Amino acid sequence: MHVIALLTDFGLKDGFVGAMKGVIKSINPTVEIVDITHEIEPFDIFQGALTLYSVYRYFPPYTIFVAVVDPGVGTKREPIIVETEKYIFVLPNNGLISFVQKYDNIRRVILIENSRFMLNRISETFHGRDIFAPVASFISRGVPLNLFGKEKSPDSLVKIPIPEPKVYNDKIEGEIISFDRFGNAITNIKDLPEHFTVIFRDYKIADLKSNFLEGEKDKPNLIVGSTGFLEIFLPQDSFKNRFNAKRGEKVIVKEEE
Amino acid sequence: MHVIALLTDFGLKDGFVGAMKGVIKSINPTVEIVDITHEIEPFDIFQGALTLYSVYRYFPPYTIFVAVVDPGVGTKREPIIVETEKYIFVLPNNGLISFVQKYDNIRRVILIENSRFMLNRISETFHGRDIFAPVASFISRGVPLNLFGKEKSPDSLVKIPIPEPKVYNDKIEGEIISFDRFGNAITNIKDLPEHFTVIFRDYKIADLKSNFLEGEKDKPNLIVGSTGFLEIFLPQDSFKNRFNAKRGEKVIVKEEE
Amino acid sequence: MHVIALLTDFGLKDGFVGAMKGVIKSINPTVEIVDITHEIEPFDIFQGALTLYSVYRYFPPYTIFVAVVDPGVGTKREPIIVETEKYIFVLPNNGLISFVQKYDNIRRVILIENSRFMLNRISETFHGRDIFAPVASFISRGVPLNLFGKEKSPDSLVKIPIPEPKVYNDKIEGEIISFDRFGNAITNIKDLPEHFTVIFRDYKIADLKSNFLEGEKDKPNLIVGSTGFLEIFLPQDSFKNRFNAKRGEKVIVKEEE
Repeated sequence: MHVIALLTDFGLKDGFVGAMKGVIKSINPTVEIVDITHEIEPFDIFQGALTLYSVYRYFPPYTIFVAVVDPGVGTKREPIIVETEKYIFVLPNNGLISFVQKYDNIRRVILIENSRFMLNRISETFHGRDIFAPVASFISRGVPLNLFGKEKSPDSLVKIPIPEPKVYNDKIEGEIISFDRFGNAITNIKDLPEHFTVIFRDYKIADLKSNFLEGEKDKPNLIVGSTGFLEIFLPQDSFKNRFNAKRGEKVIVKEEE
Repeated sequence: MHVIALLTDFGLKDGFVGAMKGVIKSINPTVEIVDITHEIEPFDIFQGALTLYSVYRYFPPYTIFVAVVDPGVGTKREPIIVETEKYIFVLPNNGLISFVQKYDNIRRVILIENSRFMLNRISETFHGRDIFAPVASFISRGVPLNLFGKEKSPDSLVKIPIPEPKVYNDKIEGEIISFDRFGNAITNIKDLPEHFTVIFRDYKIADLKSNFLEGEKDKPNLIVGSTGFLEIFLPQDSFKNRFNAKRGEKVIVKEEE
Repeated sequence: MHVIALLTDFGLKDGFVGAMKGVIKSINPTVEIVDITHEIEPFDIFQGALTLYSVYRYFPPYTIFVAVVDPGVGTKREPIIVETEKYIFVLPNNGLISFVQKYDNIRRVILIENSRFMLNRISETFHGRDIFAPVASFISRGVPLNLFGKEKSPDSLVKIPIPEPKVYNDKIEGEIISFDRFGNAITNIKDLPEHFTVIFRDYKIADLKSNFLEGEKDKPNLIVGSTGFLEIFLPQDSFKNRFNAKRGEKVIVKEEE
């Protein structure tokens, strides 16, 4: 019983996702398709990579992830298969795998070359339907990965810049890397010292809340989010909208004694 | 063949829903997951409760509903299992079950306590993934409900206020309780006298339309909606937007001879 | 292993889609439900028909498509089953099948009459749940089509106007018929002469791009889209928004020597 999980920026109003599902079911009628999201902002590889990373570990071993945020579709960017210890990813080599690669071991990278596992006609604009979906479906039927093309070095994986917090003696300089649908800001900071002050704009925040309702209404509040990153929130309100917060804004953690 | 049906306010752009599905499939690979909606307005328990009520009867017996609209996640609000004659609900005890409870019999309420049926690490902000999804999946595998925790009285279910129409001798005073995506207004009025005049703002409406196209273009029209409630609509247009209608607006039914 | 694929204008925020899925699974627990889209603009039969056409061929043979964009629900417009060589469609007779009909052979049209295959109570506003979903589910269980009602001539299918390109000696006069979520404009032009100039507003465009990134930033660019139609695009930007383009705008192809 295989699962193919889909993550794209195709949106839900067109037929793109439906066409991919049709192709998958045509090749393997018994595989199960699970949607992660199709609402990644168009062309936002970073957001796609982060979202993929935040969910993939929760899926059953051997889940096949098809991730398509692919502004370079039809160019020479490579379609690839990436294998980790427990999972398989089918996606363009454009950085979508970067967050997974940072935290997990890449066992194998295969270039997708064998047209036998693609649709007969490859459009220039929709490799999700014509290459990635059929390849994933053939994998789910048990086709060995080496039949899809030649192996490549994990070093050949294209990496997108992942903003790392800068760690100094007495402080960590991080930033906001994403917002969720509730308007909570997700930072790139994972480990907090026991005593700290977080500085965001003119605010100094010295405590972690242990749930959203504990937050104060008119100032930024801190909590450890569900992916382990420090988050900034307002209780039952959008921090993003109320503070007009932006990706890339600095968040500084000062260690206190 | 079990079905787990999901209703949340998590939206579709983040990985929240995908993570829940991954957890469910990891615990029970053969269970089927059906999305009801993930577009409940953030924190809108009332809308979640109403939507759950409007669909649950159409599902097969023994369907397990996971409903997560949960502003109090991480506080002491309880995670519970609610059993009716034909269905099982896994959700926070915050009123999400209120509409179902009003119209159906509650057979059993179980407090979710046994951490064996939760993920190893419980985040403070995402019990959908860490508690509700795994509990539902274990239920779908046949774990008896009493193993999840101690039984509670149905009286301990938190109730949200459900606006009831006020019934007088010669009139019913109801209100708009919701709008659907087409902009139709759903009222809380279910039973109409044979001869009536409905008063909405300055309009007096004396007839029910039998389909949307029969409606008149520039005045509120009445129809009995698919959940049995009286609805106000415009033909092929949004009544909500055109009349700037609001939840809570009064709708009065006067009985005529 | 049957697939029922859904395409509606019901949106994802209400319980409409969930109720349909519940009905389908109640009648046939083993059928698989695949969402094509539920974000067709309300009442936009043309867009629904075009989207259905763009995806249906990618599904496995004998897939049952339930398409509901149905402003005339509750009127005398007919609920029908349409059979092509490889597929079955369950939908209102209002033109939703028009694009499929133009490019495929209709083998049989059946009027849905037999109330045995509908829900007991038929609402006036939600035949998706009360008629189309249960009929599709009974078909997936193997009920022969002739049991649903009497056969009708394919000529009785309601046709919506499909804008055809006008072909002259030295030019083709087409138009924009749709936009996708990326803001690419889809025209109704399928066959281009070897040498051509495309005229859109004041722009003359003489070349086809072979991928989106090749496009120039400030002028309309041409590409053959994934459904085979000529498309106009901007690289990593919305042509629709930047040019304020509209459905129905003329696109002229002049043949050059």
